[in-house]
Amino acid sequence: MSNTTLRGRDFITLMEFTRDELEAILEAAYDLKRKQIRREPHKLLDGKTLFMLFYNVSLRTRNSFEAGMTQLGGHAHFLQPGAVYTPALKGEEQAYTTERISDVARVLAEMGDGIAIRIYGKHTGWLYGKGNRIVREFAEWSRVPVINMEDDMYHPCQALADVMTMQEKLGELRGKKFVMSWAYAGSVEKPLAVPQSAIIGASFFGMEITLAHPKGLELDPNVLSFVEKNVRKFGGSFKVVHDMDKAFKDADVVYPKAWTAQPADGKRPMDPEKAKAIFEANKHWITTEEKMALTNDALYMHCLPADRGQEVTDEVIDGPNSVIIEQAANRLHAQKGLMALIM
Amino acid sequence: MSNTTLRGRDFITLMEFTRDELEAILEAAYDLKRKQIRREPHKLLDGKTLFMLFYNVSLRTRNSFEAGMTQLGGHAHFLQPGAVYTPALKGEEQAYTTERISDVARVLAEMGDGIAIRIYGKHTGWLYGKGNRIVREFAEWSRVPVINMEDDMYHPCQALADVMTMQEKLGELRGKKFVMSWAYAGSVEKPLAVPQSAIIGASFFGMEITLAHPKGLELDPNVLSFVEKNVRKFGGSFKVVHDMDKAFKDADVVYPKAWTAQPADGKRPMDPEKAKAIFEANKHWITTEEKMALTNDALYMHCLPADRGQEVTDEVIDGPNSVIIEQAANRLHAQKGLMALIM
Amino acid sequence: MSNTTLRGRDFITLMEFTRDELEAILEAAYDLKRKQIRREPHKLLDGKTLFMLFYNVSLRTRNSFEAGMTQLGGHAHFLQPGAVYTPALKGEEQAYTTERISDVARVLAEMGDGIAIRIYGKHTGWLYGKGNRIVREFAEWSRVPVINMEDDMYHPCQALADVMTMQEKLGELRGKKFVMSWAYAGSVEKPLAVPQSAIIGASFFGMEITLAHPKGLELDPNVLSFVEKNVRKFGGSFKVVHDMDKAFKDADVVYPKAWTAQPADGKRPMDPEKAKAIFEANKHWITTEEKMALTNDALYMHCLPADRGQEVTDEVIDGPNSVIIEQAANRLHAQKGLMALIM
Repeated sequence: MSNTTLRGRDFITLMEFTRDELEAILEAAYDLKRKQIRREPHKLLDGKTLFMLFYNVSLRTRNSFEAGMTQLGGHAHFLQPGAVYTPALKGEEQAYTTERISDVARVLAEMGDGIAIRIYGKHTGWLYGKGNRIVREFAEWSRVPVINMEDDMYHPCQALADVMTMQEKLGELRGKKFVMSWAYAGSVEKPLAVPQSAIIGASFFGMEITLAHPKGLELDPNVLSFVEKNVRKFGGSFKVVHDMDKAFKDADVVYPKAWTAQPADGKRPMDPEKAKAIFEANKHWITTEEKMALTNDALYMHCLPADRGQEVTDEVIDGPNSVIIEQAANRLHAQKGLMALIM
Repeated sequence: MSNTTLRGRDFITLMEFTRDELEAILEAAYDLKRKQIRREPHKLLDGKTLFMLFYNVSLRTRNSFEAGMTQLGGHAHFLQPGAVYTPALKGEEQAYTTERISDVARVLAEMGDGIAIRIYGKHTGWLYGKGNRIVREFAEWSRVPVINMEDDMYHPCQALADVMTMQEKLGELRGKKFVMSWAYAGSVEKPLAVPQSAIIGASFFGMEITLAHPKGLELDPNVLSFVEKNVRKFGGSFKVVHDMDKAFKDADVVYPKAWTAQPADGKRPMDPEKAKAIFEANKHWITTEEKMALTNDALYMHCLPADRGQEVTDEVIDGPNSVIIEQAANRLHAQKGLMALIM
Repeated sequence: MSNTTLRGRDFITLMEFTRDELEAILEAAYDLKRKQIRREPHKLLDGKTLFMLFYNVSLRTRNSFEAGMTQLGGHAHFLQPGAVYTPALKGEEQAYTTERISDVARVLAEMGDGIAIRIYGKHTGWLYGKGNRIVREFAEWSRVPVINMEDDMYHPCQALADVMTMQEKLGELRGKKFVMSWAYAGSVEKPLAVPQSAIIGASFFGMEITLAHPKGLELDPNVLSFVEKNVRKFGGSFKVVHDMDKAFKDADVVYPKAWTAQPADGKRPMDPEKAKAIFEANKHWITTEEKMALTNDALYMHCLPADRGQEVTDEVIDGPNSVIIEQAANRLHAQKGLMALIM
């Protein structure tokens, strides 16, 4: 592995890492994936503990972290806020129901080796940025690394797995066309974390990035600025379009999924009725074989769970270009690389 | 151990195994039980992961699998459907609440080494066979072994432990009289899995099997046919009676427990009112010391939890012939043998 | 470590241990703490299982036991009563919902190496002593050690951590003034376990103990008698006062926290309205910098979670004399010492 030392670093957004650092994590991930496949022992975190605090449900994230810790020789605790005293920001506490995050974070840091948190949506009152503020509050008080398992701004572990999957399938990513597209779903309760982290991830590797969505579904302008700055630094390009077909044209990778309509200033919460209206006006943003035919035989990506029949047809998601299972598998390997370096 | 290789096999019902294969599992179970008692290390599944998906509550099953995996050097995840996106059959999905089983199974199979599922009763709409269909759907999509931790048709791990316990207590089972009897309980929410698997298990080992129940509480005719076929192949006998006292006469083993009245065609759900009426008419189907006196000093068996005062009196279940704790203990050992061979 | 053998002992209250035995546990705790800090392997419970049954929520207790078992090479199961069949005393059972404790305890004892239980408050109908009775019922039937993780009478693991923390900060405890004080909180749902165990713990080590609380918040007279007897045996003193300022005067340690008003005869349940009235009349029992100024530069202790702004001001709990994080950390180390000796 490289000489970059990441021991003790929090992992909240890729934006706080250099490309060299991300490559060090990916290198560790590939190495541990090889070892896992060959069943070579790699107990790099023997006897260590990761605390996983899930305000929201999870299949991939929980099981990849928990199995990953087992494979590394340690153990991950599955914690639901209601079964501890729900960690709360200063000023939002209730006697004998919540506990201030500063206390929770400092206590857990004494007992184990890492704290991972998932929080978005209703657990943040759908006020954009509040989930991230809570993750950062843990990081502020914990002396062991904090890992963002998806907040309302970022899902950096997903982005690592996405980059891995594209590298495995396409080799060099420079010059490849990556399309992050909105797609329709029957529920508006979808955070912005995945699309934002996906374009951030792609922007480190010289990809030609297209973000596609109907009007009213804009992402956070700070994320867009970061991506623009990154493509100037690392090559590639970035543009935003409002037409799914146009976006898919000649794409090497498409990543179509729903996200909600949410004021990025964090001052007003998401308005479900307003979001629903935008969603229902755009039911034609579904990934079909016809749309896939517009691409350059593109990989079909999705973080899962997918709303089949809404975001995508069965033919596409179960078709030959779909890499969804490889993507999910890489969650395990990417996070093992990450944990091995920071914990 | 024997030469039979079971690596990669699903374990859904004993009906899909040969007697040689079952004996190989039991041999492994006895060997690991000896090692566990002597505290000899036996980390045969070092660093491996079992995913346990519990739609229904569990004491013995969860704790025996989870402790068993620890003793084998691995780890078992305790997953409740509500804390992941509830796995659902195609056509029964809801946006952002459920996830299609094909996706769940393929994803978990990438991250670990086995998937175990418990599902019956209200989680299947009490439609006989639906729980088994869900377990089989997991098996269809998973490339790692699937273990049935009790569905609405079979509880094969319980049956393994039952056979072990009888062998330990009685030695050779050939010619011994095994009575699977219905018994009254205050709740009708009891699947058919345990009695069906118990008689299937006994039918591999030459036992003289009597199934006893009031009319209206018939078991699945396909299971009865299998048992009849098996006793022709392996010796022993099989009959059905409708009188508890008559069944107990000269028994070497009695296994009295409640099960519901349920149409075995899987076309109509269990009718609680109708089941309740049959139950209440048969409150005298309780296991008492008087009934035990009719037997050949029989072992008293129960899978637990038992409804004391309804299915059985305290005197019997806590009496000298009761082997309920040995039976529960053998869940651990039987499942360790199974996992060591298939995972 | 000392020659005292504690293998197989239950740990329900410090009152059932000699000072030598407690010192053997503390010695093991200090040793394992040193090893953990130096990352020296200490897998004394390799492959062993602790069952943790939490009727009540927990942050520190759960995570310290679970991480502690991982560090010792074993694994702890997190069990919530609703996800098993809720263990119930004889006569309080419901068909298919509960299971008699005698069965639960005997079954778990066959599968693992220790059973730990937390139960108080609403899960005991707020009838003082019932939680302890349930813990003892488990111990009665389990052939592996039972650990009290806080019932409605005792929290002996907290008391071990409290003694450790005081010894680390103050050295010899003999002659030091220890003040266990009531403090106001917005919720009356607080058991008596922590204050009772804290004064029991202090009474083994020659401390000058003051118990302070408003009238109507008396502790269990049996506990007070035990403390009186202990200070006669081991030196130190014990008195009860009804004035927080007077108690704090010249204290070396203050431990102010809320507990409820509850008839100690166990015949009537806690009356929330009556308790609330006493609480609201004593809002001035809050730990402030002014009160801390009365002490001999005392350590500020709290078991957490603390109701900030009610029991204590932020200035005190986050101030230089606060040892709350060390105290929580010592939960881990004390319990590892305990488990290594009894399991």
